[in-house]
Amino acid sequence: MRNLLLTLRFDGKQYHGWQVQKNAVTVQQTLQDCIQKTLQNREPVIGCSRTDAGVHANMYCCSVKTESAIPCERFMAALNSILPYDIAVVDCCEVPQDFHARYHCKSKQYIYKIYNAQIKDPFLHGYALHYKYTIDAEMLNRQAKDFIGTYDYVGFCGSNSSVKKTVRTVKNASVERLGDLVIFTVEADGFLYNMVRIMVGTLLEIAQGKIKENTIKDIVASKNRTRAGFTAPPCGLYLNKVNYGSEK
Amino acid sequence: MRNLLLTLRFDGKQYHGWQVQKNAVTVQQTLQDCIQKTLQNREPVIGCSRTDAGVHANMYCCSVKTESAIPCERFMAALNSILPYDIAVVDCCEVPQDFHARYHCKSKQYIYKIYNAQIKDPFLHGYALHYKYTIDAEMLNRQAKDFIGTYDYVGFCGSNSSVKKTVRTVKNASVERLGDLVIFTVEADGFLYNMVRIMVGTLLEIAQGKIKENTIKDIVASKNRTRAGFTAPPCGLYLNKVNYGSEK
Repeated sequence: MRNLLLTLRFDGKQYHGWQVQKNAVTVQQTLQDCIQKTLQNREPVIGCSRTDAGVHANMYCCSVKTESAIPCERFMAALNSILPYDIAVVDCCEVPQDFHARYHCKSKQYIYKIYNAQIKDPFLHGYALHYKYTIDAEMLNRQAKDFIGTYDYVGFCGSNSSVKKTVRTVKNASVERLGDLVIFTVEADGFLYNMVRIMVGTLLEIAQGKIKENTIKDIVASKNRTRAGFTAPPCGLYLNKVNYGSEK
Repeated sequence: MRNLLLTLRFDGKQYHGWQVQKNAVTVQQTLQDCIQKTLQNREPVIGCSRTDAGVHANMYCCSVKTESAIPCERFMAALNSILPYDIAVVDCCEVPQDFHARYHCKSKQYIYKIYNAQIKDPFLHGYALHYKYTIDAEMLNRQAKDFIGTYDYVGFCGSNSSVKKTVRTVKNASVERLGDLVIFTVEADGFLYNMVRIMVGTLLEIAQGKIKENTIKDIVASKNRTRAGFTAPPCGLYLNKVNYGSEK
């Protein structure tokens, strides 16, 4: 058996997230169906993470085992010829038998796009959160630095999660303005359910003055979901980088 | 009666172009319906040009007459609150009674986006033409300069047009590369039906070697539609600027 690692890019607008579900179209299901058509085998595809409905990926990694000897380049081209327009395979390589797309991941980077202008941009509907009131991106950048470190992020976890270990190491967090776009970037060894979206909601409530400046460390330490901000909508969220260190 | 000039930005993916049609959703119809809801009057909206199905606008101008005394800012906000996500009013101002959004237009600028990479980008589906083979943008830029001037562009006119005067003055034409995007920009005092899309098809056939380099002037002078290139699809086309000189 060969173990193939696929790197995807997908527009999540039309999908109910990554993970296979009953009665809903997901990225994993769509990809598995196309792999079955291409290789005639039906191995499950192992993804690097779950993503919520409407969340996008500039980079998403997943692996699949196969008896097929198909060269990576040809496999990629075959998949791209039958995948719907909103999913693309941008890379394919062979990895060791025991490689696991989720467990061997060293870190992931997410970005969250906020369109900060009075009037909506028709081209960003579903691709950025529209936020009308002027954001001080430099101030938010200083606030975001307080997410960096190894903390119990249980207060930044959505209520539908059953995960037991809630300590995560945030390696980097920043906010920058590019024209009318304000972009939050965060890298961690792993993320809890809704963690990035709650981080964004917290930053936006600081921007609004609903949450005081320089309180992020206290809020994290409180481990209290009600002290953190709202859960920002999924449309602005993109899985941006998946890092396997030297294991890939 | 006041005459109000609206500046729009719209994602044309879901529309059958600007112009009102039977049995099809158009931008003009959608806007007129929203204006009727807002001002309770039913004056027609005069657009600066027709656009084809699937064509986008970073800037589109249209005017509407009204007896209403509503301030421009409030009219804009009211419209934006009921327009669908893919149409935005980005400016509104009062213009003279005799101002005509089409006839008083001095020039328009279109851009055409080509995504020039081996693998499709899921986020550009419907927003750029995907073209796999490497384009020499500098060479095409030199070719594009031959469109500049006052010529009879009848050979660059789609067959469904009934227009009689086919001389147009192209003020600027250029091709530039921005990463994997190749962008054709063209400004003229007016455009014939499908003119920009046939210009793009001609440039792409030069890139492919199907049409010889340095023949654009001859092709234009031939006034022969069959010597120009194919009609590039609408998805990459954006009305980008509308210029009224000092009349607005």
